[in-house]
Amino acid sequence: MKRARVVYQGRVHDAAPAGSGLTLGDGRNVTEQEVEWLPPVMPETVFTLGLNYADHASELSFKDVPEEPLVFLKGPNTFVGHRGATPRPDNVGFMHYECELAVVIGRSAKNVKAGDAYSYVAGYTVANDYAVRDYLENYYRPNLRVKNRDASTPIGPWLVDRDDVEDPMDLRLTTKINGETVQDGSTADMIFSIPVLIEYLSGFMTLNKGDIILTGTPKGSVDVKTGDEVITEVEHIGALVNTII
Amino acid sequence: MKRARVVYQGRVHDAAPAGSGLTLGDGRNVTEQEVEWLPPVMPETVFTLGLNYADHASELSFKDVPEEPLVFLKGPNTFVGHRGATPRPDNVGFMHYECELAVVIGRSAKNVKAGDAYSYVAGYTVANDYAVRDYLENYYRPNLRVKNRDASTPIGPWLVDRDDVEDPMDLRLTTKINGETVQDGSTADMIFSIPVLIEYLSGFMTLNKGDIILTGTPKGSVDVKTGDEVITEVEHIGALVNTII
Repeated sequence: MKRARVVYQGRVHDAAPAGSGLTLGDGRNVTEQEVEWLPPVMPETVFTLGLNYADHASELSFKDVPEEPLVFLKGPNTFVGHRGATPRPDNVGFMHYECELAVVIGRSAKNVKAGDAYSYVAGYTVANDYAVRDYLENYYRPNLRVKNRDASTPIGPWLVDRDDVEDPMDLRLTTKINGETVQDGSTADMIFSIPVLIEYLSGFMTLNKGDIILTGTPKGSVDVKTGDEVITEVEHIGALVNTII
Repeated sequence: MKRARVVYQGRVHDAAPAGSGLTLGDGRNVTEQEVEWLPPVMPETVFTLGLNYADHASELSFKDVPEEPLVFLKGPNTFVGHRGATPRPDNVGFMHYECELAVVIGRSAKNVKAGDAYSYVAGYTVANDYAVRDYLENYYRPNLRVKNRDASTPIGPWLVDRDDVEDPMDLRLTTKINGETVQDGSTADMIFSIPVLIEYLSGFMTLNKGDIILTGTPKGSVDVKTGDEVITEVEHIGALVNTII
């Protein structure tokens, strides 16, 4: 099942896909043009992986891949829904998209072993974790000027149930800018897999329902410009549309 | 004015100090023994300063003080109220308290200049930002195993209104373990002052009502052990009691 959260006529509704439009939780059918998309899950703690694809680490001139997951947090100011707009800040030299598989936690998880990890997953969505490269600095965990700008993390459109995704570790990720493919990778190339990440994080803290893990991005970074339409797509999960303003 | 949030007979109440007890929002008087303290503000985005006191940076063997604020975020799993308990994880070698002045934002702030910054502050409270030193690593922004454990950030007891604090940049901070003073500093020794921090953060993102800035800690780190009573106190703001379990 796929679920979204949308605003229609001033109220928030759950929604499901219906042909080219949506069916709201109350049964009404609406078109995409009539709604505003929200993040499909209200973000609680949002974890973001740094350098979880070896080719992207290399592209950023980090010689060694990390020996354990490099994880940082994102604030609620950063999220914006499908078909939303993300500002390119004034006076920055390089801002790039990052197409990522987002894993949504379904129930409280502490000290979970990798072999049991998927049973704690509610489902998956797509995130575009924009980065302002100017401030990346010479160490792994990026600072807030790189990764915590307002509306810098589009997420959606759908939360896709876990059991509807045969193998989340074998999904193609692509990004298109104005129709041209600029990023093309596979979740198969993650350094730390979804089960390993859940074991790692739940080993020292509790993961809660609604927490989201953004699992990192493969190589292919191109600077975005005002007016660009950026579509980040994860196979079987969805195509997330965003515009740079 | 001082305000707290407490649980009394299964419900959350606002509360104010009244002699040795509290007055609930509905006018009832209760004793401290009858309530459970919550964080005085529901934490939204919580910013934490790394190395904002030169003597603490030196103590951690970082030779240079930072040239700009080193800021990271904390997740909601980390917070616990006054008189709460914080677990010392198994198998860690060194866990230390950090007495900090916590600044609570009162209204939406973007591109605020330092000269106007205090008008965006709602008030102040006390935080104890425990750190598991084992995982500090050799760079500034600590990882989640250091700073994001469950219940690792006691906060409270009171939110004290901004206008009731004459000079937040001249307050004594002390920590006592089982009655013995182990940390004794002053907010006057911050490297980046409260107005500078608000200018810095609001310069690239929006600060929202309820956001909290933990402003860093002076030197004086001692390992805590199970059973220790740790009291972090900021002059005029409050004394926050926590027990290590």
